[in-house]
Amino acid sequence: MKLVLYLQSKRRVWWRDHLQSLLPEIDCLLWEDCADKNAIDFAVVWRPPAGGLRQFKNLQAIVSIGAGIDHVLADPELPEIPVIRTTGAELTQRMREYVCLHVLRIHRQCSDMEAAQREQRWRPVITPPATRRQVGIMGLGKLGTDAAIHLTQLGFSVSGWARSKHTIAGVNCYHGEQVPEDFLKRSEILVCLLPLTPDTRNMLNTNLFEQLPSGAGLINAARGEHLVESDLLAALESGQLANATLDVFRKEPLPSTHPFWTHPNIVVTPHNASLIDPLSGGAEIAANLRRFIRGDLIADLTDTKRGY
Amino acid sequence: MKLVLYLQSKRRVWWRDHLQSLLPEIDCLLWEDCADKNAIDFAVVWRPPAGGLRQFKNLQAIVSIGAGIDHVLADPELPEIPVIRTTGAELTQRMREYVCLHVLRIHRQCSDMEAAQREQRWRPVITPPATRRQVGIMGLGKLGTDAAIHLTQLGFSVSGWARSKHTIAGVNCYHGEQVPEDFLKRSEILVCLLPLTPDTRNMLNTNLFEQLPSGAGLINAARGEHLVESDLLAALESGQLANATLDVFRKEPLPSTHPFWTHPNIVVTPHNASLIDPLSGGAEIAANLRRFIRGDLIADLTDTKRGY
Repeated sequence: MKLVLYLQSKRRVWWRDHLQSLLPEIDCLLWEDCADKNAIDFAVVWRPPAGGLRQFKNLQAIVSIGAGIDHVLADPELPEIPVIRTTGAELTQRMREYVCLHVLRIHRQCSDMEAAQREQRWRPVITPPATRRQVGIMGLGKLGTDAAIHLTQLGFSVSGWARSKHTIAGVNCYHGEQVPEDFLKRSEILVCLLPLTPDTRNMLNTNLFEQLPSGAGLINAARGEHLVESDLLAALESGQLANATLDVFRKEPLPSTHPFWTHPNIVVTPHNASLIDPLSGGAEIAANLRRFIRGDLIADLTDTKRGY
Repeated sequence: MKLVLYLQSKRRVWWRDHLQSLLPEIDCLLWEDCADKNAIDFAVVWRPPAGGLRQFKNLQAIVSIGAGIDHVLADPELPEIPVIRTTGAELTQRMREYVCLHVLRIHRQCSDMEAAQREQRWRPVITPPATRRQVGIMGLGKLGTDAAIHLTQLGFSVSGWARSKHTIAGVNCYHGEQVPEDFLKRSEILVCLLPLTPDTRNMLNTNLFEQLPSGAGLINAARGEHLVESDLLAALESGQLANATLDVFRKEPLPSTHPFWTHPNIVVTPHNASLIDPLSGGAEIAANLRRFIRGDLIADLTDTKRGY
């Protein structure tokens, strides 16, 4: 069996070698080294080129090197075959760290504290305990559920919203097609961990911001396309939002002239909230491919119609 | 019965009124309003003046407005009567937030990320997952134990050291008079939550820093007197420590000319890691005083010989 790897990164040779060592029974090739496209059974990809995958006539499955599959579904000529995502313990662990860190940063007013240090001023800020701080999580998949559980353990008052029904101990879970007004009304810190689909694209917009409590904080660790950038700038300008922490952007790397970089109330992180570590990620990919070959159940098999 | 309140804060009138509303059966007086010192039964204090408390000949108990009693024991003429500290859920909750926030900040290399944003540079830093990051907690009292539990839940690999033996699920607990070499050797991020006693004073010094892994991070949220300030500056200079987050100082407020304010690798917070909230703290104080009057067991009764 043969596998082709597509990844626009200098590390792709390392990845290929690593997958090869984990899957000795499969011949692992780089996209550019693949002479006989009809011989390829599997494609392991990050942001594959449009129209690229349909050239592999005998492809059985596509593996996304990441939890989201939006970068695969973006191909209008995508073959209708199974798409398997890559999640795994480390991806969840890293996102847990990012969300807890940045919710705590906003909660404890870290930017005020940092400004006070720069001014060499002793200015104790007293924030309410987390038990009186309401956090809302949009998206209750693997990452959102884990973040909600850990924020609850830290003491926060946590709500969550997802399209389908979820039950998480200690978390006030909402569900339905629309984001409920009640959920937004109580979210002093809103965290977006939604999959990117036609329904969720541009969801972080003026209409949503206006339903949050005045002075709310926003964290987007999902996809840049969830956010209407000009609406965020307007909401920060009016004070409806106090601050935003963004890990993802419509264009990545974020262009050096983009206004987000220098905005006093925006924290920019370079899409590193949660990365697939090649070591653990490679093992997850190998395990999922073996499950596929054996015909076993794959928890990471996605629903391409639904988009996640 | 009568109670006297000592607190060098503009909020002391509010505190007196608040305690009075919680303890209608006790006459609550400000220190400066107390004419008949012999009529006073209880003193509720923060940093009382040396020699001040012995003037109250019939004092039955002293209450520290805080978890530490070092500021009370600092009085060389302290009467030999029970000293009750004030802890409670909110103090623990707030310290949990502070410790988790600052451990995560160090773990995720936030200062590098912030520098990258200031330079408008997309520079993804990849940190190991918390499962591969070793955190050491010095002091396993109420605050230290709670912090250790929550860091473990976040995924960190946590060790703790205290003088007496502790057992905390998932935490590698050391005990004994001396800080064990093994404990220090593995602490990439060291958190001090010790009580201040003659044994722990100046414990954060060159000798201890040299036993940590090179490039370790330090968080001191206990007392300024735990730290030898010049030793910290030397350890940061040599690179033996990569950074320090300090909430407490030998002199508070930290003087505006102090080198810590402008040090690139020191985060200064103004002794607000965990504050006694007057609302919940007042209720804790009232509850402990009622327990004392009834002769009930008081978990917050301290051992003044031991110093905590």
